[in-house]
Amino acid sequence: MNSEKIKTAVIGASGYTGQELLRLLAMHPAVELVAVTSRQEAGRDLVSVFQRLAGAPSVEGLAFISPDIDAIVEAGPKVAFLALPHGVASEYAIPLLERGVRVIDLSADFRLRSAAVYEEFYGHAHPAPALLDEAVYGLPEFYRDELPSAKFVASPGCYPTGVLVPLVPLLKKGIVKLRGINVSSLSGVSGAGKKTEVSLLFAEVNESLRAYGAPKHRHLSEMEQELSLAAGSEVTITFVPHLMPVNAGILTTIFCEPEGDFSDLSGRVGAAMEECYGESPFVRILGEGGFADTKNVVRTNFVDVGWVIDRRAGRLILSSAEDNLGKGAGSQAIQSFNLMNGLPETCGLLNF
Amino acid sequence: MNSEKIKTAVIGASGYTGQELLRLLAMHPAVELVAVTSRQEAGRDLVSVFQRLAGAPSVEGLAFISPDIDAIVEAGPKVAFLALPHGVASEYAIPLLERGVRVIDLSADFRLRSAAVYEEFYGHAHPAPALLDEAVYGLPEFYRDELPSAKFVASPGCYPTGVLVPLVPLLKKGIVKLRGINVSSLSGVSGAGKKTEVSLLFAEVNESLRAYGAPKHRHLSEMEQELSLAAGSEVTITFVPHLMPVNAGILTTIFCEPEGDFSDLSGRVGAAMEECYGESPFVRILGEGGFADTKNVVRTNFVDVGWVIDRRAGRLILSSAEDNLGKGAGSQAIQSFNLMNGLPETCGLLNF
Amino acid sequence: MNSEKIKTAVIGASGYTGQELLRLLAMHPAVELVAVTSRQEAGRDLVSVFQRLAGAPSVEGLAFISPDIDAIVEAGPKVAFLALPHGVASEYAIPLLERGVRVIDLSADFRLRSAAVYEEFYGHAHPAPALLDEAVYGLPEFYRDELPSAKFVASPGCYPTGVLVPLVPLLKKGIVKLRGINVSSLSGVSGAGKKTEVSLLFAEVNESLRAYGAPKHRHLSEMEQELSLAAGSEVTITFVPHLMPVNAGILTTIFCEPEGDFSDLSGRVGAAMEECYGESPFVRILGEGGFADTKNVVRTNFVDVGWVIDRRAGRLILSSAEDNLGKGAGSQAIQSFNLMNGLPETCGLLNF
Amino acid sequence: MNSEKIKTAVIGASGYTGQELLRLLAMHPAVELVAVTSRQEAGRDLVSVFQRLAGAPSVEGLAFISPDIDAIVEAGPKVAFLALPHGVASEYAIPLLERGVRVIDLSADFRLRSAAVYEEFYGHAHPAPALLDEAVYGLPEFYRDELPSAKFVASPGCYPTGVLVPLVPLLKKGIVKLRGINVSSLSGVSGAGKKTEVSLLFAEVNESLRAYGAPKHRHLSEMEQELSLAAGSEVTITFVPHLMPVNAGILTTIFCEPEGDFSDLSGRVGAAMEECYGESPFVRILGEGGFADTKNVVRTNFVDVGWVIDRRAGRLILSSAEDNLGKGAGSQAIQSFNLMNGLPETCGLLNF
Repeated sequence: MNSEKIKTAVIGASGYTGQELLRLLAMHPAVELVAVTSRQEAGRDLVSVFQRLAGAPSVEGLAFISPDIDAIVEAGPKVAFLALPHGVASEYAIPLLERGVRVIDLSADFRLRSAAVYEEFYGHAHPAPALLDEAVYGLPEFYRDELPSAKFVASPGCYPTGVLVPLVPLLKKGIVKLRGINVSSLSGVSGAGKKTEVSLLFAEVNESLRAYGAPKHRHLSEMEQELSLAAGSEVTITFVPHLMPVNAGILTTIFCEPEGDFSDLSGRVGAAMEECYGESPFVRILGEGGFADTKNVVRTNFVDVGWVIDRRAGRLILSSAEDNLGKGAGSQAIQSFNLMNGLPETCGLLNF
Repeated sequence: MNSEKIKTAVIGASGYTGQELLRLLAMHPAVELVAVTSRQEAGRDLVSVFQRLAGAPSVEGLAFISPDIDAIVEAGPKVAFLALPHGVASEYAIPLLERGVRVIDLSADFRLRSAAVYEEFYGHAHPAPALLDEAVYGLPEFYRDELPSAKFVASPGCYPTGVLVPLVPLLKKGIVKLRGINVSSLSGVSGAGKKTEVSLLFAEVNESLRAYGAPKHRHLSEMEQELSLAAGSEVTITFVPHLMPVNAGILTTIFCEPEGDFSDLSGRVGAAMEECYGESPFVRILGEGGFADTKNVVRTNFVDVGWVIDRRAGRLILSSAEDNLGKGAGSQAIQSFNLMNGLPETCGLLNF
Repeated sequence: MNSEKIKTAVIGASGYTGQELLRLLAMHPAVELVAVTSRQEAGRDLVSVFQRLAGAPSVEGLAFISPDIDAIVEAGPKVAFLALPHGVASEYAIPLLERGVRVIDLSADFRLRSAAVYEEFYGHAHPAPALLDEAVYGLPEFYRDELPSAKFVASPGCYPTGVLVPLVPLLKKGIVKLRGINVSSLSGVSGAGKKTEVSLLFAEVNESLRAYGAPKHRHLSEMEQELSLAAGSEVTITFVPHLMPVNAGILTTIFCEPEGDFSDLSGRVGAAMEECYGESPFVRILGEGGFADTKNVVRTNFVDVGWVIDRRAGRLILSSAEDNLGKGAGSQAIQSFNLMNGLPETCGLLNF
Repeated sequence: MNSEKIKTAVIGASGYTGQELLRLLAMHPAVELVAVTSRQEAGRDLVSVFQRLAGAPSVEGLAFISPDIDAIVEAGPKVAFLALPHGVASEYAIPLLERGVRVIDLSADFRLRSAAVYEEFYGHAHPAPALLDEAVYGLPEFYRDELPSAKFVASPGCYPTGVLVPLVPLLKKGIVKLRGINVSSLSGVSGAGKKTEVSLLFAEVNESLRAYGAPKHRHLSEMEQELSLAAGSEVTITFVPHLMPVNAGILTTIFCEPEGDFSDLSGRVGAAMEECYGESPFVRILGEGGFADTKNVVRTNFVDVGWVIDRRAGRLILSSAEDNLGKGAGSQAIQSFNLMNGLPETCGLLNF
């Protein structure tokens, strides 16, 4: 019965994040897609662009439209997902919110609470600083209570999700020191988007391992904001992203220095994780000695978290795996959507 | 004129390291291969096992023989490369040395100076502790003076090479603190050897990113030994290796805390590198902002080294790339061979 | 309501086909898993072996059991999937059928109608020739009418599915000549199973393209049986499989010589496809000029089919893509399961 | 002694073919690079663009220059390699030839003897039909006698090399029928060049298998020209190229129908190969049952050739492997260069 379904729009649906949103929304039992936009694909059938979706009853007959606000609003969406580049998203978020559409923005535009930090990291003034306070940071494991009533959600970045899920519980409990946190993250290539750059060509990335973007990747601002909130004190970390020859997946390895005695460290880590994620269906705790593997999470909304203790050097090593397009983007946004709409958190997201 | 060439044996030549040695020795202008052993391929022509080598004049007609000491010695080698598993290498190193053959051992058996550390990390007593003092650690950039007269060389491990090359110059100069060094290394699959284990099957490794072996990988012992020697004081580090879906290459990212002022840090790092590697043809310094990429070094003997400075968090990040089978194993052993035999260091190794 | 669900067993569930069956059955709305066997994993929780499935309500608490017929039957399954090697499957199929369990066998044991052809291609006498007539060939697009009442289904091989789907409609209509059909198929590595062989190691397969198994791959027998049935006359084809560095997917390119005039050839091909697959939700016709791409079908039950016409050389080229573990194995078996149990053909299989 | 070396230019050196030429010419003992051009990289050091080449004595200090004819000629090259797109190459070939520079053109501009066929396949009139007769087709195995005196060489395409090497000897001897030759070729992505197109991005190609370009790929014209010359009669074939997720390598599988008796077919095939390639150091015959594998030939100038006989269906299946950038482009051009300059055919090309 389509009448009960939630009318939904996807703005900017021809990139990898848009494609992942469509893949999941196409089979989401509570969603009716009413508007799917793409500047460059406007007028074409969804399935002619995404052959993979051919055969999904809910996208049959659906065509991309131009990203015109009036046309979008006319289609009657209750919720709009924005899968647009940062800087562009605000041009859609503001008018859609004004016209009563709830917005889930997957760009970086509204993730930071400080316009100054945005300007420092993104290199230009924030386009709508007044809205920064309205957006809920859509990491449901931490903002589950704010999401049901949220009109505006800023869905987290892919790297921040992989860093925050293992670290936040430990910072909240004071289990690790605030200084000296070093993060090495490995990302699949879809994380760079569908950009036609030489550096993203198959023959450049395949059989190549390289770091990039350090020491001041834009996502660092978002990580430090949420880590500082968890710690109740300012946290500055070192973050090095790497580009890996896989389509999807982020593996994060975090080096940190524990507070207190090592004898019960693993127990304290486990208890903090359990307290934080006991009710969270998408965080899977691997325990001490568990190494997360991206192949277990790609195309899902799960984050796997494990840890090992280096007693010789006095370090705790955390390991997390997620799908950069899934829990790091599309499916996490749908998890927020579910909570915003009173649906079970896992609705449409239990894929394996 | 074969009469001037150096008669050379390769013991244990059917694995990936042996194959890389053969690939390079086959075209080395000063080498005559006189014995190539493999327990499982004995009797077969080299080219029937390694089709890739078909057409190399120097391996035409050569067959694998059984690894029998008498048979090897009878072939008259001046130098023998051992590409055997640790624990097994000493069974060949000792008798070959006794019979006057210079030995370059690519296993871990003689890299450590302490039998106790060997036992701690390898889980069994050292098979020939008396020989530990005789072996020169075959990292030519650091032991260039000892190699010409060496009878016995313990060629370094793949991970240690990628960690030591960037760090040793800085520790020698006191540029980084001894505590809190965190290392994330990413290795291609050939580093695990030609083992028929489920975890190394294509369908398990491809599209997968995962850490393993932490917190006490065996190579850690070797890294800490050489780092401590460079620092003149005991150094304990945290090391996390990762298995990556590429055939070859190791990318190493090192987080460390600088000593002294940040204003001239990059200059001090550069000067230390220059002082250490100014005469080293195989270390290529990328400078500040340079991110090493394994695709520039695979199938070569080069190590590329770059660094970035994280002023916000007070960290120096070093980046190195090497080929685990090349500078991390086979070609590095040949670099030692060249020095042992009075040949130009680059002889047979300038491949691009 | 579990009481309405169909109690289901999976025999031999630790290989790649078993894993794919579990992945799909875990979320199948009409299935209750009551027995999952694995000789080597017996006693272990499913999720401890397959971390990817952790979080699926229906596998929570389920453990592998030994493949003991009594234990399996005791669990009360109405249907058992056999994901066993050929030769072994019959040892389970016969007693399970005798005890009233409907069997879907994914091995090659009961796909051929002739015990003599089985012996010719598999190199040993057929273990249960009397049962050959009872098994329905589980390619639902061709045997949709026989499946609802079938007690015993022989699910097709991966290569045969990719060859039969494009060719059968044309042979039925006499659109292509019976002689001179040449097939080149490219398969992902999971098609070779989870075997610990050197040739399947990552470092052997990655960056490698090679043919194998020609001219008499075992699947040829199965293809020719069904092609001959479609043509009403004996068809002998040439088939060359290739091993490709992807996890999953089979791309098949078929060269054949058309009968009759070229002017309306594409129309006749399209009409034959439409007549054959108009009611088939899992065959997606790309039309003339459409090149199938495995990335659009992996992890789904779809087969994409396109064609081009080479007027210069007088040839019709067919192209099909499927997932070797999906439509070529696990999901196709579940498609048969759905039909056997009066469920919608797409039940549990509309994943994108 | 640089004075004896052959002054050499590479025009259009920033693409993949140019890069491969530079990689090989940098270590070629008889070559002095005097001019290396790139419109987009003009002014930059070679090693700043190709970090992989850093450390090669012969490229140290060399910078890209603009592709200006006067500047090139002034540098004094005896030979110029053109690694330019088709259509552009003739703009350089003509003036360079006029000014006495021998030209090896790696584009498609002068491979065809017929301007009409060029126009049919390339869609525009040939830019310099008068020169078509002057160019020698630079497949040294077939034109070894013409190359020493050639002023102008049209180096073959990558696909044609892989098709011609196995087929020409058989057509010359009348061993296979001229009708019904079907070719399936699988190419690594570098074959498509360094083009910034969505379809060549890592995330589009990785884990994807697809055909393209059939039924009338441009290289077909070149194949048929040379096959017809070998057969002494017009040959029309069917050719289907596929894009594979590897960096380099072409695997070609050829289906053909033998003439005469099958009993001595393999012997006749072997004899024809031996007669044709007995003196050819770069063609390695694998014999009956030998399946060529691209991993044995990438980064070399070798072509491996094997075959199997399908007695059931009456077909001979040929298999060849080459590197599309090597024997299919750069190293083959250097093989011609060697013959043009009286050097050993293998000079600078025996890499493994």
